[in-house]
Amino acid sequence: MKNNQTIIFKNKPKIISSYSIAGPKESYSVFAPFFDLVLKNDLWDCDSYEMAERKMLEHVIFNAIERAKRNPSDIDALLCGDLLNQIISSSFAARKFDVTYIGLFGACSTMAESLAVGACLVDGGYFQTVACATASHFSSVERQFRMPLELGTQRPPTAQWTVTGGGCSIVGKDGDGPKITTATFGKVVDYDITDANNMGAAMAPSAMTTLIQHFKNTKTKPEDYDLIVTGDLGKLGAEILIDLMEHKGYKLGQNYMDCGHCIYTNKQHTFMGGSGCGCSALMLNSYIIKKMKQKIYNKILFVATGALLSTTSSFQGESIPCIAHAIVLEN
Amino acid sequence: MKNNQTIIFKNKPKIISSYSIAGPKESYSVFAPFFDLVLKNDLWDCDSYEMAERKMLEHVIFNAIERAKRNPSDIDALLCGDLLNQIISSSFAARKFDVTYIGLFGACSTMAESLAVGACLVDGGYFQTVACATASHFSSVERQFRMPLELGTQRPPTAQWTVTGGGCSIVGKDGDGPKITTATFGKVVDYDITDANNMGAAMAPSAMTTLIQHFKNTKTKPEDYDLIVTGDLGKLGAEILIDLMEHKGYKLGQNYMDCGHCIYTNKQHTFMGGSGCGCSALMLNSYIIKKMKQKIYNKILFVATGALLSTTSSFQGESIPCIAHAIVLEN
Repeated sequence: MKNNQTIIFKNKPKIISSYSIAGPKESYSVFAPFFDLVLKNDLWDCDSYEMAERKMLEHVIFNAIERAKRNPSDIDALLCGDLLNQIISSSFAARKFDVTYIGLFGACSTMAESLAVGACLVDGGYFQTVACATASHFSSVERQFRMPLELGTQRPPTAQWTVTGGGCSIVGKDGDGPKITTATFGKVVDYDITDANNMGAAMAPSAMTTLIQHFKNTKTKPEDYDLIVTGDLGKLGAEILIDLMEHKGYKLGQNYMDCGHCIYTNKQHTFMGGSGCGCSALMLNSYIIKKMKQKIYNKILFVATGALLSTTSSFQGESIPCIAHAIVLEN
Repeated sequence: MKNNQTIIFKNKPKIISSYSIAGPKESYSVFAPFFDLVLKNDLWDCDSYEMAERKMLEHVIFNAIERAKRNPSDIDALLCGDLLNQIISSSFAARKFDVTYIGLFGACSTMAESLAVGACLVDGGYFQTVACATASHFSSVERQFRMPLELGTQRPPTAQWTVTGGGCSIVGKDGDGPKITTATFGKVVDYDITDANNMGAAMAPSAMTTLIQHFKNTKTKPEDYDLIVTGDLGKLGAEILIDLMEHKGYKLGQNYMDCGHCIYTNKQHTFMGGSGCGCSALMLNSYIIKKMKQKIYNKILFVATGALLSTTSSFQGESIPCIAHAIVLEN
């Protein structure tokens, strides 16, 4: 097939376990009862926020492996990425585990990217069991991408709040859990948005492109899914996506939700909602997977979007290239 | 298999074309006659070194695709990574091509990581043709990881010189070229080296770990390969690797070379030699592949190492975790 983006898995790798972690601000989320661990202090006894982010990532990986009744030595590969420069949270977390490591970067699309690549490696028989994980931390990301927190810089109304949280899914050939039946990898899409405080507007077109490609390739419609969930478009980005899709003849209805839009409450003053690779990782590995296990949802389309900018590219006047990767989970 | 690191490919994906680019300093290399394009000016008519790095990456991808007698629309996926924060060279290069993009980060191991993952995706039938690429630029890397060039900071004797260069391999199911027969993915190894100006010492143990695992899993010995080539250990790192391997009962002989060690001449004052993800990408996609096509080499083991640090991790007193991924190419 020419320019193939969608993969239908023959052997249907399963998410045999998952584990999630959230920060103190996220403990006020309506989804908090589904989170596996909620931190009371976002430094978590570490010397820096970067070290806390890494500890979160180590914690979700370790506990997801344990919940799958495996030892770290049973895991064939760890597929992991994060937002920090040179994905140090992932690489330093991988150091803790005596396991093959495949470092990925897809910004906030990392959870979907790692699951899509991981599912290929398991489906193809190259690995039996892989761990797919990511995490983000408000304070480490804020000081790297924007301003030191101590400055108390004002946030524009289109801003989102980086989620302190993370999640890990163990994908295996054997075991029970939601099956990964399809993956649609994304292309880089750039609609010339240059405002790094308006990620929703930058990322929405990439979600649209991947969704439409996915619907076409799989001959499905939005109504065929119990839930279509995007990663961290936020309130504005989700509204833009709904508009863009309607323009292309696809109606995203009651079965559509965005993790960033709904993770915080209105009272939390996060403006457009949550963002960061931890946002969708947290929601997928808590609420979504748990609701699938309860058969509330039986077929979901998970589309995580990523803004592939850096501070250097923004300083040099570049627009924000974005990507979205999608996977389908079925009971 | 428990904790599987080595994959033997059933369908033997082939490197159906490759293309390399080098900077002005690299034009004095004894290997320069093998490079496809040598730049006279390392800004290459761009406004910044970051933009020049990206242009190099776009150029190698475009020309490798053309050399494979394909159009960009025939490429199913681009697997790409680089050293800049948030791998912007790769993501912005991917924007130029209307193609599925899988962002990777393995620091200087990226060429081997992208080929290993790409070979899995082609071997498993998920994609027919993928492009695997990386590039680095001395001036963009130096100012990001070390000091602004304008400062003229002195370099310690263990330092290496980031190669301005890059390469792209097109991996396909159909076509002619060296076959990728085996891949051994690496684990993160950390021998507690904290000196970011001594990458060779930090990375050598990861090369050893992957090499030994590879030899054990494939029941081969160093003598079974026409060439064993490491990425950018440099003079000191290569000597450390030879020592470490000898200690473990493996003798790396005349068939061993390190790209970083041999890319520059002694007169170029690069101290320990070349480094950067462009170093091994340039050498693989020029000299090595061309010598394989001439049947001078028929079986090579390519091991690229990466130092997974960031400036933040170094400032916070962390040691340098490293990784090495290996692939075997056979005629």
